Amino acid sequence: MLHPLASGDGPEPELMVVYGSRRPHSCGPLPEGAQVLVDLSNNLKKGMYMEANAVYLQRLVPKAAVVKGLNTLSTWALQNGLLAGRQVYLCGNNEAKRDVAEMATKLGLTVVDKGSLSAAKEVEDFPLELFPEWRMPLYVAFGLSAFFFLYLVIRDVIYAYVENDEDISYRIMISLANKITPVVSLIMLSLCYLPGAIAGFLQLYRGTKYRRFPNWLDRWMLCRKQLGLLALGFALLHAIYTLILPGSRLKNTTTPLYFDNTSAWRTDSLYALEILGFFLFVLLGLTSLPSVGGTLSWREFSFVQSTLGYLTLFLSTAHCYIYAWDRFLRKSTYKWYTPPDSMLCLIVPSVTLVLKLILVLPCVNRPLMRIRQGWECNRPQDEMACTSGKVSSVLKSI
Amino acid sequence: MLHPLASGDGPEPELMVVYGSRRPHSCGPLPEGAQVLVDLSNNLKKGMYMEANAVYLQRLVPKAAVVKGLNTLSTWALQNGLLAGRQVYLCGNNEAKRDVAEMATKLGLTVVDKGSLSAAKEVEDFPLELFPEWRMPLYVAFGLSAFFFLYLVIRDVIYAYVENDEDISYRIMISLANKITPVVSLIMLSLCYLPGAIAGFLQLYRGTKYRRFPNWLDRWMLCRKQLGLLALGFALLHAIYTLILPGSRLKNTTTPLYFDNTSAWRTDSLYALEILGFFLFVLLGLTSLPSVGGTLSWREFSFVQSTLGYLTLFLSTAHCYIYAWDRFLRKSTYKWYTPPDSMLCLIVPSVTLVLKLILVLPCVNRPLMRIRQGWECNRPQDEMACTSGKVSSVLKSI
Amino acid sequence: MLHPLASGDGPEPELMVVYGSRRPHSCGPLPEGAQVLVDLSNNLKKGMYMEANAVYLQRLVPKAAVVKGLNTLSTWALQNGLLAGRQVYLCGNNEAKRDVAEMATKLGLTVVDKGSLSAAKEVEDFPLELFPEWRMPLYVAFGLSAFFFLYLVIRDVIYAYVENDEDISYRIMISLANKITPVVSLIMLSLCYLPGAIAGFLQLYRGTKYRRFPNWLDRWMLCRKQLGLLALGFALLHAIYTLILPGSRLKNTTTPLYFDNTSAWRTDSLYALEILGFFLFVLLGLTSLPSVGGTLSWREFSFVQSTLGYLTLFLSTAHCYIYAWDRFLRKSTYKWYTPPDSMLCLIVPSVTLVLKLILVLPCVNRPLMRIRQGWECNRPQDEMACTSGKVSSVLKSI
Repeated sequence: MLHPLASGDGPEPELMVVYGSRRPHSCGPLPEGAQVLVDLSNNLKKGMYMEANAVYLQRLVPKAAVVKGLNTLSTWALQNGLLAGRQVYLCGNNEAKRDVAEMATKLGLTVVDKGSLSAAKEVEDFPLELFPEWRMPLYVAFGLSAFFFLYLVIRDVIYAYVENDEDISYRIMISLANKITPVVSLIMLSLCYLPGAIAGFLQLYRGTKYRRFPNWLDRWMLCRKQLGLLALGFALLHAIYTLILPGSRLKNTTTPLYFDNTSAWRTDSLYALEILGFFLFVLLGLTSLPSVGGTLSWREFSFVQSTLGYLTLFLSTAHCYIYAWDRFLRKSTYKWYTPPDSMLCLIVPSVTLVLKLILVLPCVNRPLMRIRQGWECNRPQDEMACTSGKVSSVLKSI
Repeated sequence: MLHPLASGDGPEPELMVVYGSRRPHSCGPLPEGAQVLVDLSNNLKKGMYMEANAVYLQRLVPKAAVVKGLNTLSTWALQNGLLAGRQVYLCGNNEAKRDVAEMATKLGLTVVDKGSLSAAKEVEDFPLELFPEWRMPLYVAFGLSAFFFLYLVIRDVIYAYVENDEDISYRIMISLANKITPVVSLIMLSLCYLPGAIAGFLQLYRGTKYRRFPNWLDRWMLCRKQLGLLALGFALLHAIYTLILPGSRLKNTTTPLYFDNTSAWRTDSLYALEILGFFLFVLLGLTSLPSVGGTLSWREFSFVQSTLGYLTLFLSTAHCYIYAWDRFLRKSTYKWYTPPDSMLCLIVPSVTLVLKLILVLPCVNRPLMRIRQGWECNRPQDEMACTSGKVSSVLKSI
Repeated sequence: MLHPLASGDGPEPELMVVYGSRRPHSCGPLPEGAQVLVDLSNNLKKGMYMEANAVYLQRLVPKAAVVKGLNTLSTWALQNGLLAGRQVYLCGNNEAKRDVAEMATKLGLTVVDKGSLSAAKEVEDFPLELFPEWRMPLYVAFGLSAFFFLYLVIRDVIYAYVENDEDISYRIMISLANKITPVVSLIMLSLCYLPGAIAGFLQLYRGTKYRRFPNWLDRWMLCRKQLGLLALGFALLHAIYTLILPGSRLKNTTTPLYFDNTSAWRTDSLYALEILGFFLFVLLGLTSLPSVGGTLSWREFSFVQSTLGYLTLFLSTAHCYIYAWDRFLRKSTYKWYTPPDSMLCLIVPSVTLVLKLILVLPCVNRPLMRIRQGWECNRPQDEMACTSGKVSSVLKSI
């Protein structure tokens, strides 16, 4: 049983009564002066009971002021004094909640008020969440990886076995992985920027920014960060694979000593673009750390995530185009009449970059900017004058 | 002398009196209306005085309400307005402390209340702490590194000199380091998961989770994070060494062009496991960043640190087993009748993994889970029914 | 129009009135009981209006208690409930500000009080800041990169073309970049520690720490973190380039199979120093993350940033000296009578290290430490006794 409220250091004498459920028979009646009932309980899985525990408790002890919360703190953190700065959630009756919040603040906790006791179910589900916002991006990453794995096993390993009677199955571990990771990374990075471009066109078409996006676009936009971070993970794997490959592969192939300036430029540009793109990508990843991103102003954040992000996408796509180079002209590229993976993976990023290119054309960008600053195309003319943003304010009466 | 409280912007006129110790003769008597005496002093080293500075000050000025704190703020941060979000500690008389806390909160500081003035010594020691929780893990890392360094110098460098009359002392810089780092990393990673497994068996044996672990286990469990981060550091060094080696070593050795499918599979698996293990390890490290870990729910944190952690340990151990492969059969492996380092380093991780394997067997896991959910084996039968966790709550009377 | 204050969950009925500027004609008179006017407005660019929006608004509605703030929150964060832990700024009339601050705190926001309404201009400029503290370090990085790029293009590419009639222009992409990045990184790392050494000498010369540094030194010291992080970025690029080079370059050059123990020691030390230096550098970078650095005590922070920092600088400089080695003796090094870049880049770090070496000499360090603990050389002798730091305190009268 936890005693999170036991550290009261105030001058008034405090009495802490543990009213545990595990031994209900040994619990006496409530002592005189008991005022606040804090429910810290958690469930073993989601949807275990129809009703929130706190609501059930309120029915059991109708006169008590039940406050739900602090349930996200682990015994471990409590025992070892690792509370400072942790975020806790509270909900319940306002008076009692204020007392609990005050005590939690004294312990160095950051309290987030979730409103009345009707939010108890949400608060009880917090410790049971398992990356809900990562689910969709992970499905996309898994789906793309599986598709390209099968595609490459057929085109590379099985093709070599059937046509050349060669067993290169060992390539699955490194060589194939090093083809899958960049492809998935590039597609996911562009999927991270595509919804923003679509949203721009939608705002232009509607002529206003005050209408909500369709649900699918909203959900897509909400998981852009996760899409980007997964893309960064794949890019990191690709970088390590590329760095490890010369060592492991060089043993099996003879290196031609012939030299050609154009191909030297091409190879070097390929690597230079890869390095710069990866470097920018790591920067993007760093700014998505909560403690780093939190120190950025709005303009800085938008500069990093939009300008640097599109630059990263552009460099990565260029890297891929240079890799594909003139292979699309060679017949040997189309094994069993299928296009190579380096061609397939260019579709989504190219579409995204073209859409963005259209959006930054002055003739398209100007009306879009006006819309994003609050202009609406189907508003009476006389009111349009006051759009420029001075004195936009909100009044609150208490 | 710092004036951290000088930025009062309230409407009431405020008077700030610096009552410094460095020129006691030039300090006049206390002005009328002075109410709060904030002691910001720090010592040059721990245990410099028997008594806390603040307690001594309280004796000097008996009528003052001494508040100890804000001593962790540097002049630098104060001068340059870098206060927002910093955590400060306060202790002392409650009334006065509230005033100081309010002012500190206004400056954007996060105040942690450490209780009465008797905590002053602890607060004074904060700025002098030097990684207390890192000490034991660092000793372990240093001890293991020193042992394997000596072991490898004898087995590799001295052996080659004595038996083959070869001077390969230059290998100490890279080649030897690249043998020490993975070995130490793997052992420390398993030392990070071993105490959890031991704790599981102890809970099973005791039949309850409500008894404290023995002191050594408690302290071991408290430094798991540091053990893991040091292991990650060694793994990072190993990764860089491995990547740099082909370049530096290839110049000195001739590469055989003979090819064998099994050994290709082995080499590629070796690298693939290394890359995946390292990638997961980096993920683990990222979630141990306070700002990232703080955003995870309890279930997410336990998934990452337990499931992903054991997966990392398993991949790393498998990587090491594949590296050792069939060498243990060759007589040339046992130079001077000593086992190779790659064999020695497998002991602790193998034990850890076997212990964990036993713990996840359904027949062992089920009672353990019940114990961890609060079940106690030597409790009367009739009370056992109410174990299921509904309405576990804490009551507090004010 | 944002309704950030609409989530009031208090028991008292609240009325939220949006008093927008975009349709001034449709806004009626202020309702009864309206008390607080929160101005959330932002401008499109800095210095757009002479007067702060909030001040203008106060003139328009003279009787209102205007509070400026919350303008750094994006609509996106508001719509999606991503408020918890964000820092917001408030300024204005104290009474009203307290109400708004309370409400913001309830939403989980961290409020920083910026004082009276005269700070409104500063608050309005926050969302428009674009890395002000990064500007100078970025100029330095760009200037150094441009200089060494030109220098190396002339010395390497043009020299080879003119003297040997060779076209090695493709080297610009990787090989040249891999010479520029370490050079710029090393110089910027030493520029990060040079001002601290200069400050030490200045304090010794002045005999006190209580006089402000000259403006240029102050500004230089304030951007040390940015200088260091940029240096880390360049070091990271250098590391990746070095790792990628063997693979890309090895194809074009024949590797000599001759072996020499001294040069093996040299090459291996070169890489070992690079790896250790880079590893420490990454550690330095990690501790500069707000969430990591915030958990360090003053002594820990100073240990990492000063001791580990100088160790990193020393290792990197040693790495560069070993790279330069005996080349300065060869005539072929001085193409067109110019010194090589690896010689040029050693000037600033060497000066910094020598200055630091002087400062840590006991005869210099002792008086400096005394000065940094508050001792002043031109103070009367009798007051010097009380220097030892006991009871340094600040008194505040309210």
